[in-house]
Amino acid sequence: MKLFTIAVSLLAAVLPLQAQHTQYVNPFIGTAGMGHTFPGACVPFGGVQLSPDTEMIPHNIQGKYQPRTYEYCAGYQYTDSTIVGFSHTHFSGTGHSDLGDILLMPGTGEVQINSGTAEHPEEGYRSRIDHSKETASAGYYSVELQDYGILAELTATKRVGVHRYTYPKGADGHVVMDLDHGIYNYDGKTLWAEVRVESPTLVTGYRITNGWARTNYTYFAIEFSQPILEYGYKDKAPVYYRGGYSGYKNFPEMAGRKVVAWFKFNTAEAPQLTVKVGISATGTSGALKNLRAETEGKSFDQIHSEAVAAWEKELDCIEIEGTDAEKTMFYTSLYHTMINPSVYMDVDGLYRGLDHELHKAEGFTNYTVFSLWDTYRAEHPFLALMKPKQAEDMIESMLKHYEQSAHHMLPIWSHMANENWCMTGYHSVSVLADAIVKGLSVDGEKALEAMVATSTTPWYDGLGEYMKLGYVPLEKTSTAASNTLEFAYDDWSIGAAAQALGNKAVAQEYFKRGSYYKNTFDTALGLARPRYADGSFKQDFDVKQTVGMGFIEGNSLNFSFHVPQDVPGLIDLMGGEKKFIANLDDLFGSNLPEYCYADNEDITADCLLGGYVHGNEPSHHIPYLYAWTKQAWKTQYWLREIMNRFYKPEIRGLGGNDDCGQMSAWYIFSALGFYPVCPGTDQYVLGAPYIPYAKLNLPNGKTLEIKATGVSDKNRFVKAVKLNGQTIKNQFLTHKQLLQGGSLEFVMSSRHK
Amino acid sequence: MKLFTIAVSLLAAVLPLQAQHTQYVNPFIGTAGMGHTFPGACVPFGGVQLSPDTEMIPHNIQGKYQPRTYEYCAGYQYTDSTIVGFSHTHFSGTGHSDLGDILLMPGTGEVQINSGTAEHPEEGYRSRIDHSKETASAGYYSVELQDYGILAELTATKRVGVHRYTYPKGADGHVVMDLDHGIYNYDGKTLWAEVRVESPTLVTGYRITNGWARTNYTYFAIEFSQPILEYGYKDKAPVYYRGGYSGYKNFPEMAGRKVVAWFKFNTAEAPQLTVKVGISATGTSGALKNLRAETEGKSFDQIHSEAVAAWEKELDCIEIEGTDAEKTMFYTSLYHTMINPSVYMDVDGLYRGLDHELHKAEGFTNYTVFSLWDTYRAEHPFLALMKPKQAEDMIESMLKHYEQSAHHMLPIWSHMANENWCMTGYHSVSVLADAIVKGLSVDGEKALEAMVATSTTPWYDGLGEYMKLGYVPLEKTSTAASNTLEFAYDDWSIGAAAQALGNKAVAQEYFKRGSYYKNTFDTALGLARPRYADGSFKQDFDVKQTVGMGFIEGNSLNFSFHVPQDVPGLIDLMGGEKKFIANLDDLFGSNLPEYCYADNEDITADCLLGGYVHGNEPSHHIPYLYAWTKQAWKTQYWLREIMNRFYKPEIRGLGGNDDCGQMSAWYIFSALGFYPVCPGTDQYVLGAPYIPYAKLNLPNGKTLEIKATGVSDKNRFVKAVKLNGQTIKNQFLTHKQLLQGGSLEFVMSSRHK
Repeated sequence: MKLFTIAVSLLAAVLPLQAQHTQYVNPFIGTAGMGHTFPGACVPFGGVQLSPDTEMIPHNIQGKYQPRTYEYCAGYQYTDSTIVGFSHTHFSGTGHSDLGDILLMPGTGEVQINSGTAEHPEEGYRSRIDHSKETASAGYYSVELQDYGILAELTATKRVGVHRYTYPKGADGHVVMDLDHGIYNYDGKTLWAEVRVESPTLVTGYRITNGWARTNYTYFAIEFSQPILEYGYKDKAPVYYRGGYSGYKNFPEMAGRKVVAWFKFNTAEAPQLTVKVGISATGTSGALKNLRAETEGKSFDQIHSEAVAAWEKELDCIEIEGTDAEKTMFYTSLYHTMINPSVYMDVDGLYRGLDHELHKAEGFTNYTVFSLWDTYRAEHPFLALMKPKQAEDMIESMLKHYEQSAHHMLPIWSHMANENWCMTGYHSVSVLADAIVKGLSVDGEKALEAMVATSTTPWYDGLGEYMKLGYVPLEKTSTAASNTLEFAYDDWSIGAAAQALGNKAVAQEYFKRGSYYKNTFDTALGLARPRYADGSFKQDFDVKQTVGMGFIEGNSLNFSFHVPQDVPGLIDLMGGEKKFIANLDDLFGSNLPEYCYADNEDITADCLLGGYVHGNEPSHHIPYLYAWTKQAWKTQYWLREIMNRFYKPEIRGLGGNDDCGQMSAWYIFSALGFYPVCPGTDQYVLGAPYIPYAKLNLPNGKTLEIKATGVSDKNRFVKAVKLNGQTIKNQFLTHKQLLQGGSLEFVMSSRHK
Repeated sequence: MKLFTIAVSLLAAVLPLQAQHTQYVNPFIGTAGMGHTFPGACVPFGGVQLSPDTEMIPHNIQGKYQPRTYEYCAGYQYTDSTIVGFSHTHFSGTGHSDLGDILLMPGTGEVQINSGTAEHPEEGYRSRIDHSKETASAGYYSVELQDYGILAELTATKRVGVHRYTYPKGADGHVVMDLDHGIYNYDGKTLWAEVRVESPTLVTGYRITNGWARTNYTYFAIEFSQPILEYGYKDKAPVYYRGGYSGYKNFPEMAGRKVVAWFKFNTAEAPQLTVKVGISATGTSGALKNLRAETEGKSFDQIHSEAVAAWEKELDCIEIEGTDAEKTMFYTSLYHTMINPSVYMDVDGLYRGLDHELHKAEGFTNYTVFSLWDTYRAEHPFLALMKPKQAEDMIESMLKHYEQSAHHMLPIWSHMANENWCMTGYHSVSVLADAIVKGLSVDGEKALEAMVATSTTPWYDGLGEYMKLGYVPLEKTSTAASNTLEFAYDDWSIGAAAQALGNKAVAQEYFKRGSYYKNTFDTALGLARPRYADGSFKQDFDVKQTVGMGFIEGNSLNFSFHVPQDVPGLIDLMGGEKKFIANLDDLFGSNLPEYCYADNEDITADCLLGGYVHGNEPSHHIPYLYAWTKQAWKTQYWLREIMNRFYKPEIRGLGGNDDCGQMSAWYIFSALGFYPVCPGTDQYVLGAPYIPYAKLNLPNGKTLEIKATGVSDKNRFVKAVKLNGQTIKNQFLTHKQLLQGGSLEFVMSSRHK
């Protein structure tokens, strides 16, 4: 907590606005360990995430995978003591990664072209840092670069990263731009880069990369507040023809596979340099358009103020009471729910589509970064509830993806106009269904067409066999059992959408498919278990092992609960309520032996609660399943354990990858007292609030006050729930009930019912 | 002539239209030896040049330059007996090269991914051919692929290459698409390629290459007349992430550095397959737009008919009488003047600019392939005279280049939205000046701004020193003397343009710079000679040596005549008319020893007439210089020698690279009896016609009949020239005189005056 205190106190010095909520945002939370968050500057849903990268571990060296790359999904680990530079694109909390585009690094003295190493930063342009001279807040980041004595400050708009470098007095300052740098890099990731010096203060260019995004186009337009004195570049890879005479110095066209450019300024006389970097996926003119539209004539401080104001506005959707620590955890989580998905279009609506062609977004904002295996659970339902405009635009973006897809499929895991096919299922259908059922403005007919097309793609991950056999056979894919469970849930959600849209035939067909989860259950065992095409179950089966047992990043003990669409049916399959409760108790109460997750990058001891894995998503709804039994108090009990253990307002505070806001959205819902166990229904299952008071400023203009007076670790149990004075007898609230606003009172108690 | 006869007779069988002029076009002329023309199909100024490539000699192997690449500038040598495939972009007659984009090759049986070798074509997809089963005509090419028994036919529109493959009965046919193939290739030239199978009959994609065009974007949209049965690809280079499951077969997204794709068809049942390939530089949607706009609903035969009609229309600008051989040489030359420059924009005007951004051409057609060191001499003046609309659009394209240039310069040698900086001088200014002086519709103010900006770029090839010293010093560049001569001429042309535009100050300044040619003359020697900055001349000077003597691709004996703007001044410098004539006589009359050009790729014994080098451009105006003396008959004498020797209607008929129509435009002018010795004046210097009759159908609707009754090798001398009955006393005609039309009569004689 020491460092956080420093950050907040420095923050106070620079924050130009009243920071009612943003004062509690600490972007450092999750930047050590497994959180994979980044500390840099961005605005809500902004396409630019300008942040320091502390290390660039190549994805592989001579073909050999480098395991430490996993740590650097966001480019930054707080435990590092050097900074390579500041790049403009970062995922928030993912477990696989990419990006780190367009790295800038200021320096003094002789220009260095290589980045150097953490051990020997003096061998390159990187610099040592001292975290006591580093601050981060919503929309702002600053650090002193010790090797140069430069103060580097960062802020951002939606499409522009803004740097302010204050060089030491009298020093010859420069800026290095490394277009070969990247997160999850490998030799050759940058396919091509071009740079044009358009005028003494304007530089444009782009790079195309083959990373996790198979083909990623990142264009930029950079405006320097001072004229460039001299510039040049090095290209560390062979180029057939670069064109020109003087070539590497003061030649305004640069091009190559590994371009590192440098620009010198008269900082000896004018020590402060502001650098505005417009980013676009459509072209350098798009980047320039974004730069001009969002920052023309504005100072760094003004842009910073606007970034803070943008966060204040978005964070103001929920006002809470609680301790500073509680507010910090809450508002930082809320902040993390609004980084990804991110805007992916120019100010005038031009964007690069999945077909890599340029398209114009008519009447919607195009978004990217859809980590759907994670975010369909709570992140998208949270946005549907509190940010419906963004949720609707995200759905429209997914429908455009479908239209532009050579596979005629909705996104699985997509970013920067690429499908990366990460994880399993086709959970965009859940996002669409949830929005349709909850009455958001969605083109239902188009959505249903896309959902049906996606869910009938026979080559996709065993789906053809699933449609024939009623389950995915293990010989088809190593994740057969979890695929079956996920497909069945997704199919049920398509049925729910079809029902809401009045399409009975589709509803009937997909509700039937929604029951296919039963086909991968071993009723003798009372748990899910992968099967072969001949119907036989996998032998040598270990229900605790998270690797190689037919479940993706998980074991049968957790994944067997993945039937949110039919909990009563699941209870029956498990052998009745008693056995169901026993299974849940066992999950939370017993330990997971280390051999069960030793080979699983996404699971560590840090994210375990008994055998329950909160650090990875498939289990997120499980604590709420007691609500279907007579022991709903156990939900209340375990939720608080989870929140206390995995959500600490500390730098190493997150118990797992934040996964584009999913972990945080889980926290927001749970801290408020309810959770969307089954997106595609209109129900939020009741838990127990973590904080004594919250006011939701609902998007329809109404407010909902949530009170849990006296709540504490001791008073964690819910004695009664009253909505506008009426006691709720069910274990859930509906979307409509929440939107009606008013007062939701949880009567807390130290003893469970 | 045997092969040509075959071609014509086959042609007659397939030509669907009356082919008044096109019957005399033989695209094979120049395809053996130094001509570097291609035999494939294109339309006038078309952006697609669909032609067979017979060999792909990599530009280098492990860093070592492969000299045979020079032979394959157009991808084809008639002496070869195998064909690799058919690619969509080719230069016409250049001496450096690039392109060969999007190669298709049909085949039967097992799909092969490598191209194989000329010695062992069976090891790859290439095929043996027999030139007796090969035909070429304007807008059409066909060949029998012996290894497969496939008849391949090609035709084209401006932006679409159209293939018709007739497979043998009962054979399983396929098409291979090699996106790694290219002309002047090297390992890694293709930076990235993507392919999408959009439907069973539509495939889109692109490749980006780093060739002579530093960054070249070629998009395509391919429509097959039959549905694809099965498809796949191989990528011979590592790719980090391709995305997807089945990967290499029937997966509709392909991507990589060395993609070779294949598509199978049911040719056993339907042996004929038509493949339409739309090409664009803006995107796959641009390529599809072009494909649809130019070929939708049209059969191969219909498109072929339209291509022939387009050529008929353009070739009809000049009607001649003469022998079949004379007509063949004339119309084939005329054909070669209208291949490059080529259209470089989509049907709706969208094009990729020099800044690699997309632009919309408003009110003009955007062109590319400006081989200006060659074409400013006769090709552009020819277009200004006979194709002014195209000439004006080319000038507008050059002005857009200037606007988009990071260097703020007009093109030097540009293609596919790239400046390749080839050769010396800044001859686009000559093209602009010539058009301005001749009254074409040009934005004069913009043009002058661009000309002045280009000619004052200090870093460019010694130009800064030239502006200071009055000549380019040899320590600055190895081509100092020819640079000085070329800069001086170019500067004079800027002066002429300024004068025509009424800008006296600029005219005065540039006329002065136009006299700088004198500063690189050694008056004691009477020839041009390079100097150092201190004023001293180069020692160890050999006036015949074409390498290393301060002249680009030439020697002092030829280059000293490069003063078209001031022939009287040159005569003085050389020591008076007698010495001037002696120098000319010496040039034509004496031999050039082999050691003088042994190291010069662009000069061979085939292109020499004594010491006069017709195969390369700097000498093209020299035969006309006798016109300034009392011995103008020597012009008449030598012109016929040159035409007889270097322009034969044979496959190995051209005495040097056609250089984007420059050699051919020289021939057209000279065969008509006049030549633009000094573009930027309105004068055409009189020579002697090669043919007895020509009628120019002038762009203003008037006609000019040119008669040279009885002209022959014997009657090669001009006794008198009468324009509309009035004897011409000068040795030139003006542009205005030509445009007034009427009759131009050359009275021929076997004896000179």
